[in-house]
Amino acid sequence: MSTKTNSGNFFEDFRIGQEIRHATPRTVTEGDIALYTALYGPRFAFNSSAEFARNMGLESAPLDDLAAFHVAFGKTVPDVSLNAVANLGYAGGRFGVPVFPGDTISTASTVIGLKENSNKQTGVVYVRSIGTNQRAEMVVDYVRWVMVRKRDVEAVVPEQKVPELPGSVAASDLVIPAGLTTAGYDVIAAGSPYLWDDYQVGEKIDHVDGTTIEEAEHMMATRLWQNTAKVHFNQHTEGQGRFGRRLIYGGHIISIARALSFNGLANAFKVVAINGGRHVNPTFAGDTIYAWSEVLEKLDIPGRTDVGALRLRLVALKNQPAAGFTLKGEDGKDDPAVVLDFDYTVLMARKG
Amino acid sequence: MSTKTNSGNFFEDFRIGQEIRHATPRTVTEGDIALYTALYGPRFAFNSSAEFARNMGLESAPLDDLAAFHVAFGKTVPDVSLNAVANLGYAGGRFGVPVFPGDTISTASTVIGLKENSNKQTGVVYVRSIGTNQRAEMVVDYVRWVMVRKRDVEAVVPEQKVPELPGSVAASDLVIPAGLTTAGYDVIAAGSPYLWDDYQVGEKIDHVDGTTIEEAEHMMATRLWQNTAKVHFNQHTEGQGRFGRRLIYGGHIISIARALSFNGLANAFKVVAINGGRHVNPTFAGDTIYAWSEVLEKLDIPGRTDVGALRLRLVALKNQPAAGFTLKGEDGKDDPAVVLDFDYTVLMARKG
Amino acid sequence: MSTKTNSGNFFEDFRIGQEIRHATPRTVTEGDIALYTALYGPRFAFNSSAEFARNMGLESAPLDDLAAFHVAFGKTVPDVSLNAVANLGYAGGRFGVPVFPGDTISTASTVIGLKENSNKQTGVVYVRSIGTNQRAEMVVDYVRWVMVRKRDVEAVVPEQKVPELPGSVAASDLVIPAGLTTAGYDVIAAGSPYLWDDYQVGEKIDHVDGTTIEEAEHMMATRLWQNTAKVHFNQHTEGQGRFGRRLIYGGHIISIARALSFNGLANAFKVVAINGGRHVNPTFAGDTIYAWSEVLEKLDIPGRTDVGALRLRLVALKNQPAAGFTLKGEDGKDDPAVVLDFDYTVLMARKG
Repeated sequence: MSTKTNSGNFFEDFRIGQEIRHATPRTVTEGDIALYTALYGPRFAFNSSAEFARNMGLESAPLDDLAAFHVAFGKTVPDVSLNAVANLGYAGGRFGVPVFPGDTISTASTVIGLKENSNKQTGVVYVRSIGTNQRAEMVVDYVRWVMVRKRDVEAVVPEQKVPELPGSVAASDLVIPAGLTTAGYDVIAAGSPYLWDDYQVGEKIDHVDGTTIEEAEHMMATRLWQNTAKVHFNQHTEGQGRFGRRLIYGGHIISIARALSFNGLANAFKVVAINGGRHVNPTFAGDTIYAWSEVLEKLDIPGRTDVGALRLRLVALKNQPAAGFTLKGEDGKDDPAVVLDFDYTVLMARKG
Repeated sequence: MSTKTNSGNFFEDFRIGQEIRHATPRTVTEGDIALYTALYGPRFAFNSSAEFARNMGLESAPLDDLAAFHVAFGKTVPDVSLNAVANLGYAGGRFGVPVFPGDTISTASTVIGLKENSNKQTGVVYVRSIGTNQRAEMVVDYVRWVMVRKRDVEAVVPEQKVPELPGSVAASDLVIPAGLTTAGYDVIAAGSPYLWDDYQVGEKIDHVDGTTIEEAEHMMATRLWQNTAKVHFNQHTEGQGRFGRRLIYGGHIISIARALSFNGLANAFKVVAINGGRHVNPTFAGDTIYAWSEVLEKLDIPGRTDVGALRLRLVALKNQPAAGFTLKGEDGKDDPAVVLDFDYTVLMARKG
Repeated sequence: MSTKTNSGNFFEDFRIGQEIRHATPRTVTEGDIALYTALYGPRFAFNSSAEFARNMGLESAPLDDLAAFHVAFGKTVPDVSLNAVANLGYAGGRFGVPVFPGDTISTASTVIGLKENSNKQTGVVYVRSIGTNQRAEMVVDYVRWVMVRKRDVEAVVPEQKVPELPGSVAASDLVIPAGLTTAGYDVIAAGSPYLWDDYQVGEKIDHVDGTTIEEAEHMMATRLWQNTAKVHFNQHTEGQGRFGRRLIYGGHIISIARALSFNGLANAFKVVAINGGRHVNPTFAGDTIYAWSEVLEKLDIPGRTDVGALRLRLVALKNQPAAGFTLKGEDGKDDPAVVLDFDYTVLMARKG
């Protein structure tokens, strides 16, 4: 039998400091933007309209930042998480130069932490992954950690360490697109009169709408990002697995929740950081996703009075409206309806 | 709680003469054309082939006219019909300049009529909506009326009137694409030998084929147009609603029926007017759509002997073949299988 | 009633030597590439990355060869197989110039064989179909044969013959893209270290992964290729038909299997021939497709030491992993799990 197939890395295959250049560079196009629109229904004018984006100083409408994230992330799966049990978290994510149709994204990762679990069956792998464009400019740079199976319970992993994870990304580390201006910012076209100045720390926003997930949608999305994690695609095996169903890619939920958040955060035109995030519970086809946000922090951008940043908590719920801002139960544990607890930072125009 | 979300306008929020510039300008691309093809399977060579379109005097293959309509329509939903009970009808629709990949569509509406219903719970809102491209050229201009809930049954709407609705669009008001020629019109590539001269008023055409709708398809389509009407997306609430299911966007049915109509009307290369139309009955995932057409009128285009117009009735049925040309029951009421009764005008090449 | 609809050709409508220019030329775009990615999840860097393709001497990333095949094939359906009972086989398929976004594909066919079945209800039609681009360059050239219903059992078909079918395409007949170079071939980006030299005749590869098919996916794919075969789209009639369900377009299975084959054949960057193929059993939504390959032949390309060809058997199974390399039962008949037995030829870089 051929041994030419990739069975993915197991926990004991990783080494601290290991660098992995991932396969399958991907040229993104207007086709990806159209599919992103069809799959999530985003309405941010910055991504929807080339005219709006040019009016803000860009050459054209960039790809949605989360689409760039998914493309960069997808490349890491065959090397990092093909044998994953769970995608545990994100930290220190920064978005770099905007991605335009025609750009080609590649991803490379460095293993920054390894910690075997006490059952010796699995361990946690921490990787820092950097997506770059064809000019080697950083597109997205983030840390994620993931629980990976061991091939051999007896295998010994020589060096282990839990890395110090970055906290939220500081305002001075945020990358503002070159040439960005809000001088002619059109709040009518953007869909809301509420600008950076109008939001308060602690403010919570129920994004009201809900959207039901279909199998065909999440699989098309996940394939679009060339994410190969088996659990999303194979009902024949998953039907006999722990959930009896195909599991939905966590990034699909992030994109759904971000699209829902337009209703209340229409002027949050660009994601600039992923400070942290957890996929709290699994989701399946048929689930209806709702979302709410909380303003965690208001950040001044050094040298800019026209644009500010909001650090937001974005929480997605399944099969439960978000008006109650559900998060933890009385026991302090995650509420079973919570599927995503995501900490990210957006740019928003300030009042003149 | 934040009040920054859009809960949409209720009947009493509208005023006669009110002008609304809608949010979310949208740059359409080749990605939208590909998705339109995947969702509906249109075969009109004018939209399918850049070579065919150039041979007809255009710069490239334009976006399907109905796709342009859906984009322009979608923008109106958050302001006009978020609290709609029913989308009642269309009138006086004209298509303007063709839309090409790279064009950015914006929509503005004027409230031209308001009529409260006797139950005081709802009222009918009449709007004229105009979609324009980035050069402020008219792309589509149409009237629709929609039954909208009142927020407060006691609210009084000061000025009410039912507008005089335009009848069918006159031949002299139809917009013919600049430079259009049928000199080298290729009936083989177009898929049918039957030209304008071959059709007779009163002729009925069974379009034979049927297509079954899936949830993932109609939701992807509706999101592609950034149409935010809740009833299409949320099974969690619709499951408890009047139908127990997600309702399909009426425009999805128009596009399905138009694509089916290729078989019998292959040379109807361009939609130039929507004279009227009603979504007669709701449709749901799992329904199979069939269609038939009737030639209502043959129009000469002033100054053109190479191209004429056909005014057509396009009727879509669910779960019933169209060979019987079903429309009304013996009681004169709409047959329950009829889901669309659409009156529109197309261009077709004439014999030399 | 109108007679302007196309009811397709029946067996007795064909004549040996008949030439058919098919309707609906189609300009392919980046939108089609994105949809192909979303529908199948291919990871071949040659199609995924414009940079990778340019590094190999092409102007940009070409459309996946099978997508070009599906587009060319789709055009033949309304004329050749609208009244087909079964799509029996392929032979002698060669791919010509690569297809890039913006190219317009047209297809013409010649009837090369006719053989009535003894029941006089059906007959086999053999056609050679050639897809060309807007410069009349050959894109794909293949023979298929299909069992077609007779309209009238009594009809007599004057000339009948079973054509001599081409065997596998010889190395000297394979079309190598102009300017192709593997000088800077990047095996890391391509996703596998195994090059042409590493494969042995007789080697079998289990492609490991499986993917479950959804109705919305196969219908979107089939419409994308403007393939109008009724059995794929109409649950209302198919529900009462021989399978009780919509049948999946055989080409959909070929594309799924080819995408799965990346895991083990990542450097098989281009399909250059379809030597033969049979859709062994039907597939339906809900089926999970697995695939395995066997190396049938290693071909030297005349005049090239940097690139070779592999003739491969690609077998797709439903609802059964491919580790057992299932093909025939002990009785020598096709195993009921086998859905595709496909003989094709790919290019692969050779070791320097």
